Amino acid sequence: MLHAVVMAGGSGTRFWPLSRQARPKQFLPLTGGAPLLVETVKRLKGMTTWVVCGKTHAPLVKKLVKSAKVVVEPQARNTAPAIALATAHVMHVDPEATLAVLPSDQHVADVPAFRAALETAAQTAAEGYIVTLGVKPTRPDTGYGYIRVGAPVGAALGVKQFVEKPDLPTAQGYLQSGEYVWNAGMFVFRAPVMMKAFEHHMPELYAAVTELRKTIGTRQYESRLKKLFPQMPATSIDYGVAERAENMAVVPGSFGWSDVGSFNALPEVRHVDSQGNVTEGQVITVDCQGCVVLGSKRLVSVVGMNDLVVVDTDDALLVLPKAKSQDVRKVVEQLKGNKKLNRYL
Amino acid sequence: MLHAVVMAGGSGTRFWPLSRQARPKQFLPLTGGAPLLVETVKRLKGMTTWVVCGKTHAPLVKKLVKSAKVVVEPQARNTAPAIALATAHVMHVDPEATLAVLPSDQHVADVPAFRAALETAAQTAAEGYIVTLGVKPTRPDTGYGYIRVGAPVGAALGVKQFVEKPDLPTAQGYLQSGEYVWNAGMFVFRAPVMMKAFEHHMPELYAAVTELRKTIGTRQYESRLKKLFPQMPATSIDYGVAERAENMAVVPGSFGWSDVGSFNALPEVRHVDSQGNVTEGQVITVDCQGCVVLGSKRLVSVVGMNDLVVVDTDDALLVLPKAKSQDVRKVVEQLKGNKKLNRYL
Repeated sequence: MLHAVVMAGGSGTRFWPLSRQARPKQFLPLTGGAPLLVETVKRLKGMTTWVVCGKTHAPLVKKLVKSAKVVVEPQARNTAPAIALATAHVMHVDPEATLAVLPSDQHVADVPAFRAALETAAQTAAEGYIVTLGVKPTRPDTGYGYIRVGAPVGAALGVKQFVEKPDLPTAQGYLQSGEYVWNAGMFVFRAPVMMKAFEHHMPELYAAVTELRKTIGTRQYESRLKKLFPQMPATSIDYGVAERAENMAVVPGSFGWSDVGSFNALPEVRHVDSQGNVTEGQVITVDCQGCVVLGSKRLVSVVGMNDLVVVDTDDALLVLPKAKSQDVRKVVEQLKGNKKLNRYL
Repeated sequence: MLHAVVMAGGSGTRFWPLSRQARPKQFLPLTGGAPLLVETVKRLKGMTTWVVCGKTHAPLVKKLVKSAKVVVEPQARNTAPAIALATAHVMHVDPEATLAVLPSDQHVADVPAFRAALETAAQTAAEGYIVTLGVKPTRPDTGYGYIRVGAPVGAALGVKQFVEKPDLPTAQGYLQSGEYVWNAGMFVFRAPVMMKAFEHHMPELYAAVTELRKTIGTRQYESRLKKLFPQMPATSIDYGVAERAENMAVVPGSFGWSDVGSFNALPEVRHVDSQGNVTEGQVITVDCQGCVVLGSKRLVSVVGMNDLVVVDTDDALLVLPKAKSQDVRKVVEQLKGNKKLNRYL
């Protein structure tokens, strides 16, 4: 039985002013349909689905995805503690379960291909591997981590190396070599295998989660969680386990994947008009190409611009070049540094 | 006694979405202070001031400039009929009056210099000339009409020629020659002199205004105005009189004049910050230069843009390059052509 664990603890700011502290990226309908979290859960139809999220977002998660079991993190401590916590809960109901841990804020265009890759990964996981889904790169993107693949391991491939975001020449080399796939942050493993990996590579975390497991379903759980969770190192599963474990495997796939990383990525995942513009709401574009214009209640008119992002919300407006979409953080920094502007976060 | 006649009948769209049908440019505080009309009237302190405007705007004019006498045009018919109507009214109270006819939507930085030029013009007008104030050009602007000056006429200069907006090489030639000034649309003349000019150059208009004059102050005025005003040719005073009359003179001046012709002109008339940006309201600019960002109630953030115009109002937003400020008309055309969008005009 495959248990899907959807990680919804993120609190990024790359979609400000759409995203706010109370409503981060995974809760936004960035593809023009349902919120990313809802679309993610839909993709996993038929699996037992768990969502890991922070306390403040739990009510919203329960409202959006009624079918899922919700696991609440007392605080955000990166992915390794979140996965440990979720694994503990899944093991409580199914000690031999296979888990598919998936980000809540990505887009997949080709769901059947994605499901097939998950299936292959689950088969490989059954043999004791921690399997990651790797996305075959379509461009020398410098915004993703890469995985260098090795020799076949059953229906999957071995992992030679996890590498951090490369510079452009390096990424171009990766693309040409055909030996690299994008690290999409998706992991499939049997629960006892991951616990073993924690024991080996993250003993502190293992000790905490092992103690916590004893209290699941008891009245002591909440208070033990509050004490033990902060003892788990705030480390990513990549750094804490994937880059160290010997039993890693990768299933390369092409399923129209996007991490929807910034406004710049929206043309990948949304309807693009004949001028290459993505628009939402009451929008007039004149002599515009390659723009992303997201309105809300106002009429938004953009004239004579190429590759511009305009995002209008009830109380805040953002204008920046599409290629500088990451620079939205510079605005967020100013908001954080100014008490009068805090309310826009 | 100098009577100032302020022409407030304009209905331009170059400042949409700030300007609307109910509130055209002259009613906007485009310099960051009071509405342009109010600043114009303030500049004329001490003179008997008349404001000519359309029916729908008369209540707003009366509210904004309580000191002025308001003359209502039944409809917009360009400047010659408006000036004829105003001249008739001024003559009713002072048949030998000297009039200074001035647009309501310009900016003057150096008011004492402007007042001195008006004074010189009034002296020249006393000798029977129709005198225009010409602005010494500071750049080869292709957006203005030019006046080629001639030999001295008292304290003023003669007029060799009125010329339409030139192309850039022509404008550069004008600037270098030193023989040209910008036509600022400001005229000073004795009332009987202008009537004589109408009689000579615009006989139809003269016939109508002469008949109308008989009814001013009577109960017949309104109905006669409604009948006679549409009979006056809808012609500009430049085309109808200034370009044809022999008794034209020009007083060249430098008084920090701007016609505030578009968003592009705002840096001429407003506070510019150290990055060359003009901002209003709650605005965050990061890595921006030469931008014009006018907010209203929302937080407006602009990142990494040069020479961009962002204008945010309650119900509509405009983004366009500063150099293409004139292209706002392309949006207005779309609004006019779409019933659902009419309400934004």
